[in-house]
Amino acid sequence: MKLYSFFNSSTSYRVRIALALKGLEYDYQGINIRVGEQRSHHYSELNPSKGVPVLEGDDGFSLSQSLAIISYLDDICPEPRLVPAEPKLKARVLEVASAIAADMHPINNLRVLGYLTKELDVSDEQKRDWYRHWVAEGFTALEERLARHGYGDFCFGETPTLADVCLVPQVANAQRFGCDLSAYPRIMAVYEHCCRQAAFQQAEPSRQPDFAA
Amino acid sequence: MKLYSFFNSSTSYRVRIALALKGLEYDYQGINIRVGEQRSHHYSELNPSKGVPVLEGDDGFSLSQSLAIISYLDDICPEPRLVPAEPKLKARVLEVASAIAADMHPINNLRVLGYLTKELDVSDEQKRDWYRHWVAEGFTALEERLARHGYGDFCFGETPTLADVCLVPQVANAQRFGCDLSAYPRIMAVYEHCCRQAAFQQAEPSRQPDFAA
Repeated sequence: MKLYSFFNSSTSYRVRIALALKGLEYDYQGINIRVGEQRSHHYSELNPSKGVPVLEGDDGFSLSQSLAIISYLDDICPEPRLVPAEPKLKARVLEVASAIAADMHPINNLRVLGYLTKELDVSDEQKRDWYRHWVAEGFTALEERLARHGYGDFCFGETPTLADVCLVPQVANAQRFGCDLSAYPRIMAVYEHCCRQAAFQQAEPSRQPDFAA
Repeated sequence: MKLYSFFNSSTSYRVRIALALKGLEYDYQGINIRVGEQRSHHYSELNPSKGVPVLEGDDGFSLSQSLAIISYLDDICPEPRLVPAEPKLKARVLEVASAIAADMHPINNLRVLGYLTKELDVSDEQKRDWYRHWVAEGFTALEERLARHGYGDFCFGETPTLADVCLVPQVANAQRFGCDLSAYPRIMAVYEHCCRQAAFQQAEPSRQPDFAA
């Protein structure tokens, strides 16, 4: 398998965690989204959405969208399962994953922040406030959600799920933007527990071949 | 079951389509997000994310996030399946659903447009350009994706899937904002086909108890 990834992309980071948890080997192809490599003719042939990540299977099946990729990996390589089979637990895991992947991440990703700067001429301070606003809104809800439904060292129990796979890159991203995360003790406890696991460590941005400080 | 919904909310619309396709009866509870009812104490007890939709089961299990809700409905009431079982087809369906639910919808929803106006003081014209930019970017990619992988009258074949359930509200939303959609013939053919189905019609904003012109 081959993964098209950018070291600092949260969605790429999710897929790297999933691959590492499942112990799957893959070739790493860095796509530098800071300089627009995702818009090259060759890459947009691979992914019309012009984003990372893309997973290309050995059978030529190529797939974009991190949550679709992770669900596919769960189907073709079910151990360990990241989306639980039991309907209510599965629903809670997907609820947390969606709350991060739909309500938080898209509003603060590189292309949106770029539009704010280039098209709307917002200041660096306004852009920082924008970022922090959506993180605070999302994490306040997530903290409450985990307090109600979460249990164990991970979001849900003693094994990682798609919820943890989404949570870790979102926390790392918020830290990079200097957000104060002290109001989210449950989120941070899960994050720190995950960061002690080898698979999560292996997927970290700083350990990727295309890492640049 | 009870559905907390706003007639014009795309994510509520998705769940209404899924419920109608499965022929499930439910009580409809309108939550007027235009006047902030989702931020009331009572509602945020139900959903800490303070958004619609929420589905409350007869067993008291309540769930937010449209894609999590639809996946749960597929588990407890599998006919007709909206997320196919075959891994590669399932992957393609989830890829399209995510491309809409993560790459398009969140950036253009009411709370983000509200922030642009209230916090960043953008003009109505700039806000319209913002909306149209993300629709054009998303639909250009989706049109290409459907041309490559889609087939049949729906996105994938002759039965509706989660991909169609996400596509229809996104097209309706774009039409409401006056987007020119003539560059997306495949998307529009699927949309029009869906709009001729009774279940999709039943879920339309104008047919909901809280509809207001």
